[in-house]
Amino acid sequence: MNYSMDKKAGRMMYCMSVSHKKASVNIRERFAFHEKEKTEFIERLMRKEAVTGVVVLCTCNRSEIYVSGTKHAIGELQREAADYKGIRLEELLKYLNIFSGESAIGHLFKVACGFDSMVLGEDEILGQAKEAYQISRDQGAVDYEMNVLFQRAFACAKRIKTDTNLSRTPLSVATLVANEVFRFEKEGGEKNVMVIGMTGKMGSTITKNILSKQGIWVTGTVRSHKSDLTVEAKGERVRVVDYRDRYQYMEEMDIVISATSGPHYTVTCEELSEQISPEKKRLFMDVAVPVDMDPEIGELDRLTLYNIDYFETLSKNNTEIKLKELDRANAIMEEELDGAIKEVVFHPYIKRMEGLRKAFAGKRLDTLLYEIRDHVPSEDLKVVLKTLDGLERWIKEE
Amino acid sequence: MNYSMDKKAGRMMYCMSVSHKKASVNIRERFAFHEKEKTEFIERLMRKEAVTGVVVLCTCNRSEIYVSGTKHAIGELQREAADYKGIRLEELLKYLNIFSGESAIGHLFKVACGFDSMVLGEDEILGQAKEAYQISRDQGAVDYEMNVLFQRAFACAKRIKTDTNLSRTPLSVATLVANEVFRFEKEGGEKNVMVIGMTGKMGSTITKNILSKQGIWVTGTVRSHKSDLTVEAKGERVRVVDYRDRYQYMEEMDIVISATSGPHYTVTCEELSEQISPEKKRLFMDVAVPVDMDPEIGELDRLTLYNIDYFETLSKNNTEIKLKELDRANAIMEEELDGAIKEVVFHPYIKRMEGLRKAFAGKRLDTLLYEIRDHVPSEDLKVVLKTLDGLERWIKEE
Repeated sequence: MNYSMDKKAGRMMYCMSVSHKKASVNIRERFAFHEKEKTEFIERLMRKEAVTGVVVLCTCNRSEIYVSGTKHAIGELQREAADYKGIRLEELLKYLNIFSGESAIGHLFKVACGFDSMVLGEDEILGQAKEAYQISRDQGAVDYEMNVLFQRAFACAKRIKTDTNLSRTPLSVATLVANEVFRFEKEGGEKNVMVIGMTGKMGSTITKNILSKQGIWVTGTVRSHKSDLTVEAKGERVRVVDYRDRYQYMEEMDIVISATSGPHYTVTCEELSEQISPEKKRLFMDVAVPVDMDPEIGELDRLTLYNIDYFETLSKNNTEIKLKELDRANAIMEEELDGAIKEVVFHPYIKRMEGLRKAFAGKRLDTLLYEIRDHVPSEDLKVVLKTLDGLERWIKEE
Repeated sequence: MNYSMDKKAGRMMYCMSVSHKKASVNIRERFAFHEKEKTEFIERLMRKEAVTGVVVLCTCNRSEIYVSGTKHAIGELQREAADYKGIRLEELLKYLNIFSGESAIGHLFKVACGFDSMVLGEDEILGQAKEAYQISRDQGAVDYEMNVLFQRAFACAKRIKTDTNLSRTPLSVATLVANEVFRFEKEGGEKNVMVIGMTGKMGSTITKNILSKQGIWVTGTVRSHKSDLTVEAKGERVRVVDYRDRYQYMEEMDIVISATSGPHYTVTCEELSEQISPEKKRLFMDVAVPVDMDPEIGELDRLTLYNIDYFETLSKNNTEIKLKELDRANAIMEEELDGAIKEVVFHPYIKRMEGLRKAFAGKRLDTLLYEIRDHVPSEDLKVVLKTLDGLERWIKEE
């Protein structure tokens, strides 16, 4: 049974979605809406009699348009979208997912909470959804129902973010390494980090991650014969040095990370112990396979060495945590979704209360219950009677 | 959700079934109950506190015991059955199907309507179920709920029998042939039927079928060299003659049926036309493959010839009719089943009406509805609101 109980109006929310799940990036681009286009398209749709609300949500992974209105609203939306974007309707339909009523509400909640994203639980989408909603609100293109649903979806996302560790449980080695850098305690604050193999895939991701926080300076090594390579992570806090000179910078480093794909040690115990003083606390992280760092350096005074096994164990543990957090997040979402559906289902009855009261005035409970028994199927009768049982308790507890 | 809404009592019907679906005939025999055993076993179970009703249904295809009572009733039943029959409980459980609550009610309806029988829609089971119910009723072992459910199951079976052609649509050639015999019109009434090949499988089934109605006399042929064969269908209305003498009896026959497995004609046109007078209306039915009767006899005056193709077409058409009738019968059963469930679900509330009325007295509809909204899940809220919509209409229509 769908949620639209308001039979006369028959209003419902719909969603038309072109997402990374069904369409490649160049298809998604054709459906993208710039700021000005959004405003224009919303205005255009709001002129249709069937439509009482429109929200256009565009990110690099999805173009979604939510409409609220009569059962004709979704048809109007598809025709207008095809027309506005100059795409044949048949072509458009190939890439679309259409959600109606409760499935549209469910989809909105999933999107807002980052459950429909490429990276599960990412929260960038929440900001984008809020912005999309605000644009429509400013144009007067959000009706009562949409307002309730979007606000509740945002509240749900916030609750999941606050109450679970879903977005705080990294699984990738690059993120785990960066977290170790952030967690490394140093008086004075500024941290010097060397990344050996900074131009590699792992090296550049780690560099990007650690530079996302202030107070970190990166010394990255490159092979001289590859010095023509573009260094992806540039910036005032990055210094590029020749791989061969790496040892001469080590004394000033708090943290050294090595992520090359070569077969040889990038750091040997013999050479390192000649270069660094034992007074300083240091963290060495080796994320290469085969290992880059001579395991013996872990024996040096005040030096901690983590190798790839350490991070893989961490990642595995985090996977378990993440799955548990995902269960908790799902439970929260179901609860919030149910509350949202109840609110929109119940809303039309607030206006009808007076009429209903008059209709039932003076009728005995027996009469009403026998009427119900004689008209509804057994499944519904059970729900009604169970509700009656509850009601008897709830009003006593008041 | 199960039907037992009477939380305090928590009463429900259960069924423990050993049927042709799960157990071979020698296993079923071990679970069979004779008349005296039934009475004894019912008495024994009724002494248990958990049990408020017992019906024991035994036929050659099934041994089923229905109990009504608390949730302990089914456990008591299994233990007592194992003990009474001297079977280890573990052994017993291997052959059992257990049905609880609504599935037990559904099973009872299926059984009573012949939907669970080896021959779909057969109605012998209805009489057996009524008898089983009556035995328990006489012993005071049928509680309110069981009484409602069994009576409604019987009414349902009767309605299916009256309103559909399920049990009146034969599929087997033997039954179709017999129906032609019954339908054959003859002044004076008594019909003479010859069955050529009476000792064969088809011949003996046909003979048995046609003798089930009065006023039919059978002349059956046997091969002299096989005269030591037992003629299954004996009786005062059966005369056995030598196959070689068949033509000399044909003049007195109204109907001749041939069902041998031989390669030769049992009736040739040449010989037949010498023996019979053309004044008499006659029906010849050839159900053999290859054909037994010379097709040319169909050209003889006042003689009608049906061959196996005729019956197979009839059977095929009947299969289609039977499937349609089965759909109709299923629809009737669903409706009746729903009504039965409603009655047992509603019953406890009749006694509670006064208390509920007092609990809700003076409460505004708004208050009650907000309480419901805040306590029940959205699926239930939708049912309650939909019921309220209906109620508004129904009381206007009164």
